[in-house]
Amino acid sequence: ATALETECINSIRFLAVDAINKSNSGHPGAPMGQAPIGYLLFAEEMNYNPEDSKWVNRDRFVLSSGHGCMLQYSLLHLAGYKSVSIDDIKQFRQWGSKTPGHPENFETDGIEVTTGPLGMGISNAVGLAAAEAHLAAVYNKPGMPLIDHYCYTIAGDGCMQEGITHESASLAGHLGLGKLIAFYDDNGITIDGHTDLSFTEDVGMRFEAYGWQVLTVLDGNSDVAGLRDAIKQAKACTDKPTLIKVKTIIGFGSPNKADTHDIHGAALGKDEADATRGQLGWKYGEFEVPQQAYDVFRGHAAKGASKQAEWEKMWAEYQQKEPELAAQFKRACMDRKLPDGWADSLPKLTPEDKGKATRLHSHDCINALASALPEFMGGSADLAPSNMTLMKCTGNFLKGSYAERNFRFGIREFGMAAMCNAMSLDKTGIIPYCATFTIFSDYMRSAIRMAALSQAGTIFVTTHDSIAVGEDGPTHQPIETIPSLRMIPDLTVMRPADGNETAGAYKYAVLRSKNESRPTFMAFTRQALPNLTNSTVENTMKGAYAVIECADPELILVATGSEVHVCVNALKEGLAGKKVRVVSMPSWEVFREQPASYKSGLLPKSVPTLSVEAAVTWGWDEWAHGHVGMNVFGASAPGQTCLDNFGFTAANVASCAQRLLAGERGVLSDGSQAKH
Amino acid sequence: ATALETECINSIRFLAVDAINKSNSGHPGAPMGQAPIGYLLFAEEMNYNPEDSKWVNRDRFVLSSGHGCMLQYSLLHLAGYKSVSIDDIKQFRQWGSKTPGHPENFETDGIEVTTGPLGMGISNAVGLAAAEAHLAAVYNKPGMPLIDHYCYTIAGDGCMQEGITHESASLAGHLGLGKLIAFYDDNGITIDGHTDLSFTEDVGMRFEAYGWQVLTVLDGNSDVAGLRDAIKQAKACTDKPTLIKVKTIIGFGSPNKADTHDIHGAALGKDEADATRGQLGWKYGEFEVPQQAYDVFRGHAAKGASKQAEWEKMWAEYQQKEPELAAQFKRACMDRKLPDGWADSLPKLTPEDKGKATRLHSHDCINALASALPEFMGGSADLAPSNMTLMKCTGNFLKGSYAERNFRFGIREFGMAAMCNAMSLDKTGIIPYCATFTIFSDYMRSAIRMAALSQAGTIFVTTHDSIAVGEDGPTHQPIETIPSLRMIPDLTVMRPADGNETAGAYKYAVLRSKNESRPTFMAFTRQALPNLTNSTVENTMKGAYAVIECADPELILVATGSEVHVCVNALKEGLAGKKVRVVSMPSWEVFREQPASYKSGLLPKSVPTLSVEAAVTWGWDEWAHGHVGMNVFGASAPGQTCLDNFGFTAANVASCAQRLLAGERGVLSDGSQAKH
Ligand SMILES: [Ca+2]
Ligand SMILES: [Ca+2]
Repeated sequence: ATALETECINSIRFLAVDAINKSNSGHPGAPMGQAPIGYLLFAEEMNYNPEDSKWVNRDRFVLSSGHGCMLQYSLLHLAGYKSVSIDDIKQFRQWGSKTPGHPENFETDGIEVTTGPLGMGISNAVGLAAAEAHLAAVYNKPGMPLIDHYCYTIAGDGCMQEGITHESASLAGHLGLGKLIAFYDDNGITIDGHTDLSFTEDVGMRFEAYGWQVLTVLDGNSDVAGLRDAIKQAKACTDKPTLIKVKTIIGFGSPNKADTHDIHGAALGKDEADATRGQLGWKYGEFEVPQQAYDVFRGHAAKGASKQAEWEKMWAEYQQKEPELAAQFKRACMDRKLPDGWADSLPKLTPEDKGKATRLHSHDCINALASALPEFMGGSADLAPSNMTLMKCTGNFLKGSYAERNFRFGIREFGMAAMCNAMSLDKTGIIPYCATFTIFSDYMRSAIRMAALSQAGTIFVTTHDSIAVGEDGPTHQPIETIPSLRMIPDLTVMRPADGNETAGAYKYAVLRSKNESRPTFMAFTRQALPNLTNSTVENTMKGAYAVIECADPELILVATGSEVHVCVNALKEGLAGKKVRVVSMPSWEVFREQPASYKSGLLPKSVPTLSVEAAVTWGWDEWAHGHVGMNVFGASAPGQTCLDNFGFTAANVASCAQRLLAGERGVLSDGSQAKH
Repeated sequence: ATALETECINSIRFLAVDAINKSNSGHPGAPMGQAPIGYLLFAEEMNYNPEDSKWVNRDRFVLSSGHGCMLQYSLLHLAGYKSVSIDDIKQFRQWGSKTPGHPENFETDGIEVTTGPLGMGISNAVGLAAAEAHLAAVYNKPGMPLIDHYCYTIAGDGCMQEGITHESASLAGHLGLGKLIAFYDDNGITIDGHTDLSFTEDVGMRFEAYGWQVLTVLDGNSDVAGLRDAIKQAKACTDKPTLIKVKTIIGFGSPNKADTHDIHGAALGKDEADATRGQLGWKYGEFEVPQQAYDVFRGHAAKGASKQAEWEKMWAEYQQKEPELAAQFKRACMDRKLPDGWADSLPKLTPEDKGKATRLHSHDCINALASALPEFMGGSADLAPSNMTLMKCTGNFLKGSYAERNFRFGIREFGMAAMCNAMSLDKTGIIPYCATFTIFSDYMRSAIRMAALSQAGTIFVTTHDSIAVGEDGPTHQPIETIPSLRMIPDLTVMRPADGNETAGAYKYAVLRSKNESRPTFMAFTRQALPNLTNSTVENTMKGAYAVIECADPELILVATGSEVHVCVNALKEGLAGKKVRVVSMPSWEVFREQPASYKSGLLPKSVPTLSVEAAVTWGWDEWAHGHVGMNVFGASAPGQTCLDNFGFTAANVASCAQRLLAGERGVLSDGSQAKH
């Protein structure tokens, strides 16, 4: 490395050292080791504009080893992002600061995705690269490459060990995403100590098995030319993603702590910081950055601004030459607005229409949206024929057909979800959906949480939503799954009861994805359900409404999904003569947002209310006084047999309702009767 | 294959075809393709005794592609297990049958582990092989190999795609588990269609990168000799696990559906079953098995019984020659009983003892147990220094040191949990524990569920259990995690408040693991907590008890973990003069099991009760009328700042208690005040 390069690199290192010392909390080892990679990306390679962090054709960067966030904050600061001033860096990890303990896209301008949970970031990067490939295939025209950028990520040993990375890396290789360049910070250290304690696989060979190009840089601490050359080779390989294995020393420069796990997650302390200054010949004080380092980074950032200006010119030309596509690009990708009338083609049903499984209604909705919204894309984790998620109007998103929109994610739930989160966080207007069985949302639960936390507009489509799954048995029958997802803040859960509620759920989910960049989790049935009276898109979007109205009820039955019609039937079977309202509540979260008057009108606290849902009863106290639920594991048998034996019958609902009217409260039926 | 071999193999195939046709539900494709592997294992290779399915040195078999369970039921039936009669097979997938839709160890004798969720079974197999390696290293003596068996598993494309398999296979290669033999049913078909849609990686190369021996059998449909030879080679390689890639045709023998995804998950129907009989030359009727096929399987099973008889002789000799080890083996592994006084060394503390983090108390407990219980083993997913899970009296379980008990799982939560489940389900008395941050239990949630469902005695040790994690921020701060785990049936969740509660939690967890083979999930703090009055092991094992007693309370504060002492402090800060009881409730599940009189005495419904827990408030209605909780995501800041700002202060608890006394109900503090 030249002296100036070294000065730039050490500027990164010492901002990290000093910020972590000041907060006495953080992870200095990774930024000190990865600083040369960070330098090359932010001072040479990447096209970005700190003045407009949302420029649609910017290169994307994801720090998959998110604990090393001081690398990213240092780089954003050096490059001139206003979001990270030197004062912000001094507030590292403090309440309300712009420099939280892991990179958070919703806190800090310039951060693309929130990282920290290991393996998630590199999987996000695969999703960003997939978004790039798709948009390029759809919009680029000869001489006018509207979308033509790279996606870079840095991952550590943890990311490489996590299963999610296997899933997304295998798929990235399969898809041949040539614009994806991943650095593997191969420093031989994890929290437990040297990697030979737990991790001796040949990572490079594994990625070659996935179909990646694999390159190695033996001295990532100072061989800037070697890193530069590797990036060049990565860019030259256009039909495969590239993994650049970079041998680094964790905490490089620290005389007493480098190459040990002690430097992974604790501040160096003043003495060791001084010693490190000595070893690296760093003459500058705490939080002091030499002007020539700023000049290098900001000079490069200025080139990024020029690139954006050139891009704007091209975009003006594009609008002239390709007015139709340009209009679509502007609406869908830049303004990120839904087109007029987009929801008009969602199916509308009446009680006279033959009932069918809500997964089939979901299929109808997906296909209606697929035609109306070119930005609607996604697929299933190898359950397309079961989840009913295939779009008929488009083909498979595969190497050579990136313009198509059906993803074939393979049996890779967690990777799939992280990819979809990133396709939303790409901020190019994509409305991503991904699908699996409801029960296997457990495999991707952490990514669902991250969608909620980091404001990704992923639509999680799940089917086979209860014990009515039937013969596959308790390993495949959700009990606690849906209620446990309701606990995740800022996630909306939807369990529709029929065709119109399914359409309403999709209308809600698409609005929430496109306009708010927030996720929705949907759960659909395997089995057929009748279409209900009063069910409409509008009612669904209130979260709850009366399916059977009753002006002055003495009893209210409230249910979701497949249990709503059971409640309707219960009126005829044992509650005759009673004044009963039946409420369908497809979404707790949406109902909570309604005006207080609507809520208390629909579910007055003074009227005995019985909840009915084939799931654990936790939380229903918010809405009801007695509960029919499922607090035990299910069983393998035909779905209707399961429903009957576990108590989801009109007769049992009526009987529990009578007990409620007689004064009983709490869980009145929990499924355990079937096990006796 | 010889004619007799073919007849045995086709017996398997047609039992599967017929059972699935009769139930009109199930997955015939896999058993039809895997039948030759099943034949070789159950008619030639495996040592097992249908009369004593729990023989400690039996070979283990795991059907990782659990949907193909008719393979396993056919084999158990052919081999003579009484658990699967021909009538049981005719009841495939029916209510109460011994032949549920996925293999369930708790339903069917002869099934080692429950499978179905893909990738979990092969990861279980790694755990079983690790258990074998450990017990062999500890107990085998020259000429007396007490534990000396293989672990076989069959996995499909789904298992190979799932991330969990990456985690466990990478670790198996690292550990060099030579007794593990995995068949990869490489049939080129998944539910979505041909694997080239989503899965084109070189699986063999990947496993070589993990350090496995990889063999290939090109015609798995009929080349029995080739399969036999591969198993021989697998056994010859003693320092690496072996993957045998077997090219098969899904639904082999079906003229119109073989090699298509149509045969994966649907009955053939009568016509196609007849056509398959024609193509394979099968003269027998539905559910008819030729006597000569029974003779082959049962002849081999009889050899297994003889092997067990020989083993019993060796065991008698062993008891004579190695009386001490034999006594330990008998107690720990065969009788699976805890030794007298095992819990005596658990730490006991008084309020005068300096408070510390419960993760440090947990460390003390782990080390007390490690010395008392040679069958106690486990470790962390690379967070040993944070989770505080290292046992000082033993070394690392690694290649060459299998007798040691500290597992170095690497950053592989899901694989870790599945391995530990299997170490319990090995039924050799091992008490496995595994550790990560509380938040990352999401990564292994499906395995935690499987522990609960399939009755595995895994102890899940988690630390950093709330927003008090602090600086790492919301990606690392559990909010909904602990409450959502309480929803899993048959899982006990423990959140201790101090040292004695931690000891009580471990006593409970070990008893539950060893005596009931049931799992416990524990959540410990990062931060120091004071030791409480009245906290004892005995009180903890009641699930809840009064930390501050009050004979006739007008207010009860009930809390868990780090919020208990906040409630105690609240008495002094704003509730002076009130008659207040403070209840610590380390476990909802345990408290629920107490006598009704104890429960209503401690928490009388008539006394206004306020719950305080730094987690979502769902479910607390079961115990309290008002709630102080955390229904929003956390923030990056020092832990105490987070607790203060989100409302977990004595002052806020006192203030909410006053509101409760004034008649308010429900969520009185939800953390959202900090975000305004
Ligand atoms: Ca590392
Ligand atoms: Ca397959």
